[in-house]
Amino acid sequence: MILARVAGTVVTDRSTDGISGARYLLVESCDGAGTGKKGYIIALDAVGAGQDEVVLVSQGTSSRQTPDTDRKAVDALIIGIVDAVDEHGTITYRK
Amino acid sequence: MILARVAGTVVTDRSTDGISGARYLLVESCDGAGTGKKGYIIALDAVGAGQDEVVLVSQGTSSRQTPDTDRKAVDALIIGIVDAVDEHGTITYRK
Amino acid sequence: MILARVAGTVVTDRSTDGISGARYLLVESCDGAGTGKKGYIIALDAVGAGQDEVVLVSQGTSSRQTPDTDRKAVDALIIGIVDAVDEHGTITYRK
Amino acid sequence: MILARVAGTVVTDRSTDGISGARYLLVESCDGAGTGKKGYIIALDAVGAGQDEVVLVSQGTSSRQTPDTDRKAVDALIIGIVDAVDEHGTITYRK
Amino acid sequence: MILARVAGTVVTDRSTDGISGARYLLVESCDGAGTGKKGYIIALDAVGAGQDEVVLVSQGTSSRQTPDTDRKAVDALIIGIVDAVDEHGTITYRK
Repeated sequence: MILARVAGTVVTDRSTDGISGARYLLVESCDGAGTGKKGYIIALDAVGAGQDEVVLVSQGTSSRQTPDTDRKAVDALIIGIVDAVDEHGTITYRK
Repeated sequence: MILARVAGTVVTDRSTDGISGARYLLVESCDGAGTGKKGYIIALDAVGAGQDEVVLVSQGTSSRQTPDTDRKAVDALIIGIVDAVDEHGTITYRK
Repeated sequence: MILARVAGTVVTDRSTDGISGARYLLVESCDGAGTGKKGYIIALDAVGAGQDEVVLVSQGTSSRQTPDTDRKAVDALIIGIVDAVDEHGTITYRK
Repeated sequence: MILARVAGTVVTDRSTDGISGARYLLVESCDGAGTGKKGYIIALDAVGAGQDEVVLVSQGTSSRQTPDTDRKAVDALIIGIVDAVDEHGTITYRK
Repeated sequence: MILARVAGTVVTDRSTDGISGARYLLVESCDGAGTGKKGYIIALDAVGAGQDEVVLVSQGTSSRQTPDTDRKAVDALIIGIVDAVDEHGTITYRK
């Protein structure tokens, strides 16, 4: 998984993802302190993540291992909202 | 998924993809404002995307999760046409 | 998928791929004009691609979605020979 | 697989991974001598890895090939704790 | 697949890979001449590759398409020992 910060939302008009009401978020990969690294992907939100929150993003087939995304054409899923990151014994990020 | 802009089309003469009438598009990955990043891939079009439109591209096995691409040898699929991107509360792209 | 140009062949003496007579080609990823980008991978050839031809390469599990490669340990497959690439309305490559 | 060094832990409050008590570790990819390469991912810990230990991380669908992670939305798993690395006949890392 | 040169071995003490006697090799990705490119991964050896030999490495789910690795948590497998590489009509590597 990667750590990423929610940067915004993406609205699509026509899609074949088969997910009604899917919420696509623009997320920026970040380090353990929550600092963005300028790498952006679009991830489906499964946990109700909010703007600027640091989240855990699972990619590839793993993103289809939930009832909502099973057999859907998604390749990135927000699987958790990060509460805290501890790096070498120091809290580098807290929500 | 990634955001990408439709840059052109690719025509193949012999292929083993098993998809009759498949439409392969050359797409350039782009940022939330639709600005190209010089990274190109070839994606199958499932939504009727037009030249220069910003689209949502799903990669890997996820691209086979539609009736048309099931069990086909494709690894990238355009799953949606982007209508708008909102980044940090500002609309950075609108179709 | 990616566009790539056939650069050569790879011969293996012992292998566990389970594909009799498999033909492994060294391909160099290229842009829409067929210009090499110095990124090389080895792809199984399913279409009879010739030296220096531009081909469409599918990667990951997608490369196993053919009768010959089903359940085989390959992760890259040439699925088509490119006839032409049209970029922003201009033919940038023609076979 | 990649070699990585355990750098810390990540705590999530809401998640959809379906794994009760999952332990997510922040790991930094490293070379054969255990020197970090500044590339970080979050991996689920299946072996009880400790802070600063060098581990073997499997990514993608492979990370779901254990009873605990089967059908779970994880894409990176620590599958082993590295005892020693031998590079060109020289022990470059020993636990 | 990628071409890689066997650089060494990795010994793990605790692991969840489920493969008894698994042999993990440190391999360095290389070009068609066998010259290392400083990119290292750990691959399971299925063909008895020796130190410094150039091998063909399959990644992702493809590495599980053998009896020994089926349903195991591995994501990279040596599937062949390279005998020769021919690049643009010139033999660039011979074992």
